[in-house]
Amino acid sequence: MSVPLLLTDLYQLTMLQGYWHEGLAGEAVFELFVRKLPTERNFLVAAGLEQALEYLEHLVLTDEEADYLRSTGLFDDRFIDWLGEICFQGDVDAMPEGTVFFPNEPILRVTAPIHQAQLVETRLINLLQFQTMIASKAARCVLAAPGRTLVEFGLRRAHGAEAGLMAARATCAVGFTGTSNVLAGQRYGLPIFGTMAHSYVMAHDNELDAFLSFARSQPNNVVLLIDTYDTLLAVAKVIEAARILEREGIRIRAVRIDAGDLGELAKEVRRRLDAAGLESIGIFVSGDLDEWKLRSLTQQEAPIGGFGVGTRLVTSHDAPYLNCAYKLEEYAGLARRKVSPGKQTYPGRKQVFRRYGDDGKMAGDTLAVADEELPGEPLLVPVMRAGKRVGPAESLEVIRRRTREQLDRLPEAYRRLEPAAQSFPLALSDRLQALIAETDRRLGLAR
Amino acid sequence: MSVPLLLTDLYQLTMLQGYWHEGLAGEAVFELFVRKLPTERNFLVAAGLEQALEYLEHLVLTDEEADYLRSTGLFDDRFIDWLGEICFQGDVDAMPEGTVFFPNEPILRVTAPIHQAQLVETRLINLLQFQTMIASKAARCVLAAPGRTLVEFGLRRAHGAEAGLMAARATCAVGFTGTSNVLAGQRYGLPIFGTMAHSYVMAHDNELDAFLSFARSQPNNVVLLIDTYDTLLAVAKVIEAARILEREGIRIRAVRIDAGDLGELAKEVRRRLDAAGLESIGIFVSGDLDEWKLRSLTQQEAPIGGFGVGTRLVTSHDAPYLNCAYKLEEYAGLARRKVSPGKQTYPGRKQVFRRYGDDGKMAGDTLAVADEELPGEPLLVPVMRAGKRVGPAESLEVIRRRTREQLDRLPEAYRRLEPAAQSFPLALSDRLQALIAETDRRLGLAR
Repeated sequence: MSVPLLLTDLYQLTMLQGYWHEGLAGEAVFELFVRKLPTERNFLVAAGLEQALEYLEHLVLTDEEADYLRSTGLFDDRFIDWLGEICFQGDVDAMPEGTVFFPNEPILRVTAPIHQAQLVETRLINLLQFQTMIASKAARCVLAAPGRTLVEFGLRRAHGAEAGLMAARATCAVGFTGTSNVLAGQRYGLPIFGTMAHSYVMAHDNELDAFLSFARSQPNNVVLLIDTYDTLLAVAKVIEAARILEREGIRIRAVRIDAGDLGELAKEVRRRLDAAGLESIGIFVSGDLDEWKLRSLTQQEAPIGGFGVGTRLVTSHDAPYLNCAYKLEEYAGLARRKVSPGKQTYPGRKQVFRRYGDDGKMAGDTLAVADEELPGEPLLVPVMRAGKRVGPAESLEVIRRRTREQLDRLPEAYRRLEPAAQSFPLALSDRLQALIAETDRRLGLAR
Repeated sequence: MSVPLLLTDLYQLTMLQGYWHEGLAGEAVFELFVRKLPTERNFLVAAGLEQALEYLEHLVLTDEEADYLRSTGLFDDRFIDWLGEICFQGDVDAMPEGTVFFPNEPILRVTAPIHQAQLVETRLINLLQFQTMIASKAARCVLAAPGRTLVEFGLRRAHGAEAGLMAARATCAVGFTGTSNVLAGQRYGLPIFGTMAHSYVMAHDNELDAFLSFARSQPNNVVLLIDTYDTLLAVAKVIEAARILEREGIRIRAVRIDAGDLGELAKEVRRRLDAAGLESIGIFVSGDLDEWKLRSLTQQEAPIGGFGVGTRLVTSHDAPYLNCAYKLEEYAGLARRKVSPGKQTYPGRKQVFRRYGDDGKMAGDTLAVADEELPGEPLLVPVMRAGKRVGPAESLEVIRRRTREQLDRLPEAYRRLEPAAQSFPLALSDRLQALIAETDRRLGLAR
């Protein structure tokens, strides 16, 4: 997923030309945060940091890109030469992937000469907002179907190739078991899942032939799709196939249902399989699933071992973007603040301290000035210094474990699918409040 | 955007192993269509065909991918060798990009040996559903703001890099003027647009300095963002900057407003600029725009020359996926049909004929058997034969012109943003109806 430097908004480059022209090169601090939660989210889960760091490590302008910039007529040749020298040499502090967070809390802080910190805005948002959005949606699915096998199935309706890959990664990072996406399996070491489509059944003259043929071609991974024509009639064929295949030493692992009333069908399919002595055949379902349907199927105790969750998950269909921003909070040692209507920011470089109650649950967060020492756990940690990573990349297993711990410590009101009555408590430290007042006074003068 | 063959769902490969195992290699016909329109869409615009054809031309399994498949333990080594020989040698018929279409109409038909046609399902949907969804949303924006300059601004909140690139392409293909996405500008030859962000203003000690510095650094592209602190106070500084810059021979082209009541602010900014004799400075707005806000601003005659449309457009926020499918319609000379609840398909290889009224407007479509000759314009045309393109790639200019003509011929009820009272008329030809009945009879026996 290495991308060209030109994968950015033009205004990053025109601004850089401005900074270059006037020799503005002071240290800037930008923070990435979410302004407001979507209606149906009580929390978010940070994800995508690994890809963000990879991007920063490999930022470079190629000759071909430089030629294109020259051809636009928008840039001074000397500026393009200067741009060709840029690599990212700044510091990054961030919440580790899998951290639960809330609005107005920075999840990433970039400290670098202003042109470096500015240039990377577009892609950092592009990477972090998407994975965070998907990880947050996926965490709701995990909470809705505790202990069940969840598999990400969304590549076809993901928004392009990279969305498909990152969705597989983000969902598995927060507790999904695997993905249907083979390339994601290869790239991220994820377990891959897959069976057959309706077209496989339809290409055969009858369903039984399709079942037998499929089973014989991959005897260790026999999952049969039973809803191409009539789900319950198909169960009789599964039973027949099981008898035939048993003699060949082949076991049917599961059946898949992809349409209809999944809960009712699963119960009836279970009953018929059990009656035939086929208790060992599992039931896997898919089809327009989301966290609400997962909860409903789980609560009605439908005998379903695993779920394939696709479109609604990988598009985050009920909230397909986060209201997030990457804002200049400090420049050349002075805190900065945007005060556009409805888009005010908290000035200065900041840290988030998380407090826990006696029950071990999260009790509240405090937004503070970065160098304060307050009670609680500081959520942003150093991940890059002078353009180099502080440590090796985290494994998905580590991230998955962190997410599980975080979700365990999230108070019940925020774990529920329904909107919590109150937003999670976020306090502002005294020093931050003083900094806000001071910045406003200075800005009043600046205007 | 060349992608590995493994960017697919695992079940495509397990099915292929099934076909390979039993030597099933007959000719299959798959069609891609949308089952149902999202609530707030009266029509869709086909897009993404160019990327689909590129994909089919370059489909190949690399050695590294073969090694990965071997490592999964799911596949027979001989099957993987056979997979390594595959390239796409089939036929493709499709609606040209920019064609307006409706539910249940195939926009792409693939005719190929079944393993080739099956293997490409996931990526074909991934490419065509996204660009079609974005082109359709963008067409609504174009209809809502006739004659205005529309610029795609969404890269940061697009779902990954490829979504950002394809969104820029799809929006410009249906009438947007350009994009902020520099890489999309390079790759697709699109006009690129960009000015400054709030951080640029905030990095300066006062707004006037920021404006002057920016203008001097790119004297031919001076667009100033005026809502960082107080939009109307900033106008006074724009006027002051204009006086100073005039003496240096630099003209301010436009101001940009990104927050607040855009219509009211634009009117007041216009009034103040005009009062200062600065009629030549245009007003450009952005910030949470979609087709509804574009219409509202256009109808209230806000003096706005151009709009930057981002997040809601490139995520198609009100309908972030299309209910689309790629289904087997014929195999080995026999029509096929899926009859899962709510997901029935029309069997056989099909064509869409479009009829026009005396006023030149679209009157209705007929879904027919592919080799029928019916009154009206056949919408699917040959684009690939035996794996080779029938003609060169279409330019975006050609696609843009087609879209404009198509939207001009769309009846008013479907051009409106509000849901049309009735869906667009789609008739089934007599032969298609006969084929449905015949297929159902045969399937009844097959079950």
